[in-house]
Amino acid sequence: MRGYFITFEGPDGSGKTTISTLVQKKLQELGYDAIYTREPGGIDIAEQIRDVILDPKNTAMDAKTEALLYAASRRQHLVEKVIPAINKGQIVICDRFIDSSLAYQGYARHLGIDNVYTINQFAIEGHFPDTTIFLDLKYDEGLKRIESRAFKDRLDLETNTFHKDVSEGYQHVLKKYRHRMHVVDASQNVDKVVEDSMKIVLETISK
Amino acid sequence: MRGYFITFEGPDGSGKTTISTLVQKKLQELGYDAIYTREPGGIDIAEQIRDVILDPKNTAMDAKTEALLYAASRRQHLVEKVIPAINKGQIVICDRFIDSSLAYQGYARHLGIDNVYTINQFAIEGHFPDTTIFLDLKYDEGLKRIESRAFKDRLDLETNTFHKDVSEGYQHVLKKYRHRMHVVDASQNVDKVVEDSMKIVLETISK
Repeated sequence: MRGYFITFEGPDGSGKTTISTLVQKKLQELGYDAIYTREPGGIDIAEQIRDVILDPKNTAMDAKTEALLYAASRRQHLVEKVIPAINKGQIVICDRFIDSSLAYQGYARHLGIDNVYTINQFAIEGHFPDTTIFLDLKYDEGLKRIESRAFKDRLDLETNTFHKDVSEGYQHVLKKYRHRMHVVDASQNVDKVVEDSMKIVLETISK
Repeated sequence: MRGYFITFEGPDGSGKTTISTLVQKKLQELGYDAIYTREPGGIDIAEQIRDVILDPKNTAMDAKTEALLYAASRRQHLVEKVIPAINKGQIVICDRFIDSSLAYQGYARHLGIDNVYTINQFAIEGHFPDTTIFLDLKYDEGLKRIESRAFKDRLDLETNTFHKDVSEGYQHVLKKYRHRMHVVDASQNVDKVVEDSMKIVLETISK
């Protein structure tokens, strides 16, 4: 019995972590074997890679280096954590996955969505999510929400233009993957966002 | 005035570091502006990536993760060090480059030479070496030479079969890139290997 792979995407501050952990808890309450994870997901090698990516001192990092490092971290997290869980029949709720790289590195860093897709295809070998929930929020609303965060990593420290471009990038990704991507209005209150997300998740796992 | 990009390749223990540093010194003695480098080449971000790759504790590393990390480290070293040097008109002597990934990850790790080529093409964007010198030595001869090394990294610790496969992999790479690859018999004494290599280098830079 194969499990399910469900990812949450959206701009910074759209509530991905809050919503996806609440969805995972709801699923558990309903009796499903669901786990929450996010890259690097406690995988030692992936953590080491993430430290290199997000270190605010690494200002000299080239955009392609960044894209390759995300793909490397994704690969390790996928083979060590996500695939084994799916093979055990679990529902894997994952906070960000390939679509983040397409929007951030592919579009906002101008590497090209197709180019970044190619190296990610090498990394994920067709292990696309069954369903992706896109938490839709205007980029400046998202930035307002994260303004008060105590620790800002290298990507949080990017310009407003960068975050605007990420939002535009996601619109391209949404068009490319209509069949698996579902949009949820993230400007609503948390309960409603969770409710809308749960509907999509339950529909996916009832198939 | 554009410089030149010359790489040295070969199995472990074939003398790449010894020969390439001696060639760089000879070039300087002859009045050429030549530099020696190897990935990660003192580039801070590339060093951090290399630490992740070679840490003997990282036994859980997936082959594709490894290939992506090498490509990431290569990218950063290329844009921060190799390309600026070539643009200044220098002769860059580089100890290992893309062909190592094709032989090690592509062939010996069974990822496929073409697949590893694809992610490296993303990283190097056509910045292939002008000339590559392949130091040809039977893999078991090479292993004998490195047996006494004090520190062995994660790849030195691989099985004999792996190193045999690397040698076979290089034979495929040699066929693929006949136009830029030159074979030098690395079982000869050091002076002769340097002499043979210098001939090839001087021919390249006189073009």
